[in-house]
Amino acid sequence: MQNYEVLKEISDVIEVRKQAAAESSYVSQLMHKGEDAILKKVIEEAGEVLMASKDGDKLHIIKEVADVWFHSMVLLGYHGLRAEDVLMELQRRQNISGIDEKASRAK
Amino acid sequence: MQNYEVLKEISDVIEVRKQAAAESSYVSQLMHKGEDAILKKVIEEAGEVLMASKDGDKLHIIKEVADVWFHSMVLLGYHGLRAEDVLMELQRRQNISGIDEKASRAK
Amino acid sequence: MQNYEVLKEISDVIEVRKQAAAESSYVSQLMHKGEDAILKKVIEEAGEVLMASKDGDKLHIIKEVADVWFHSMVLLGYHGLRAEDVLMELQRRQNISGIDEKASRAK
Amino acid sequence: MQNYEVLKEISDVIEVRKQAAAESSYVSQLMHKGEDAILKKVIEEAGEVLMASKDGDKLHIIKEVADVWFHSMVLLGYHGLRAEDVLMELQRRQNISGIDEKASRAK
Repeated sequence: MQNYEVLKEISDVIEVRKQAAAESSYVSQLMHKGEDAILKKVIEEAGEVLMASKDGDKLHIIKEVADVWFHSMVLLGYHGLRAEDVLMELQRRQNISGIDEKASRAK
Repeated sequence: MQNYEVLKEISDVIEVRKQAAAESSYVSQLMHKGEDAILKKVIEEAGEVLMASKDGDKLHIIKEVADVWFHSMVLLGYHGLRAEDVLMELQRRQNISGIDEKASRAK
Repeated sequence: MQNYEVLKEISDVIEVRKQAAAESSYVSQLMHKGEDAILKKVIEEAGEVLMASKDGDKLHIIKEVADVWFHSMVLLGYHGLRAEDVLMELQRRQNISGIDEKASRAK
Repeated sequence: MQNYEVLKEISDVIEVRKQAAAESSYVSQLMHKGEDAILKKVIEEAGEVLMASKDGDKLHIIKEVADVWFHSMVLLGYHGLRAEDVLMELQRRQNISGIDEKASRAK
């Protein structure tokens, strides 16, 4: 429940660290390295999700999906965007999908 | 705010659709195709995040990150896991990171 | 031996099909769809290499690596490049690496 | 022409380095780290092909495709396979494709 707030918190932290000196944190360092360094992490972590899934290791899957989400939030921050933008897009689709489902049940 | 609930809702929907007939929805179809089909979508959408970012198209970035998150939630569902498992992992790291930061400020 | 010529042949075919009507072949179609469609195939096939490797299925690994090489040759063709450009780069590195090894043995 | 031999040479080198001590070369080190480390490189380099392509930097594209081919040859070597196995698969497809094309022209 309350843990849904964590994405907002992470986006807050990323915004702050984007302005900080490169050596002050992992996120600051990644932001200073620039877009390609962030994208490299996004695709690398997505690849690790594949490996963890094929290994069938649930704890590892959770950690790797968390890595993908985290690094995609760093990318969002790089572009001045936040986790909330993605959640709103997912909400929008969820609403449409719900309407679709009701429509198909009404048939 | 309230839109943080959307990840819980999506995990609920995915759980239901996992049990449903393949032809009943996109998620049901993907679940029936199996693990490799889901993983293919995860990596493909991560690739599209890279392209959208290089294009500098913010709306497209949001949509593609939403696609990555959505398909990683389908993968979680495939393994009997939920978005909340990832949020808890992110919360755990956020707590550790907060402690680290306080420690470094105390120096 | 002689099969090394196949990469040259494929680059020739890709060059021809790049000019042809979209509906005339798979490569022509992909070329008309454009860069993002080709890149999507490159990353998707790379993802399939990961899955095939984790499955330990050798025949599948060969097919998926062939898919990655083929689609990266389509990408090369899209940019007016050819397999030979990559082979020359690999040759250049191979020469340097050979020199390095001789140097380290001389110590 | 003669540069087609480079793939055979690289597969020879990879076979030798697979048996060597981890610290003796980059390939030996990667082989000792194991399958996941090699796969991580394959997907990471594929991601870099996407970025180089979107940047439209031809020299960079060549280097990144060379990296993908090289690391997929390391993966082949890890599984006791060689570049020739992939070339034979590409030759096989090329033959079939040639037959197809003749068939469609005959119509």
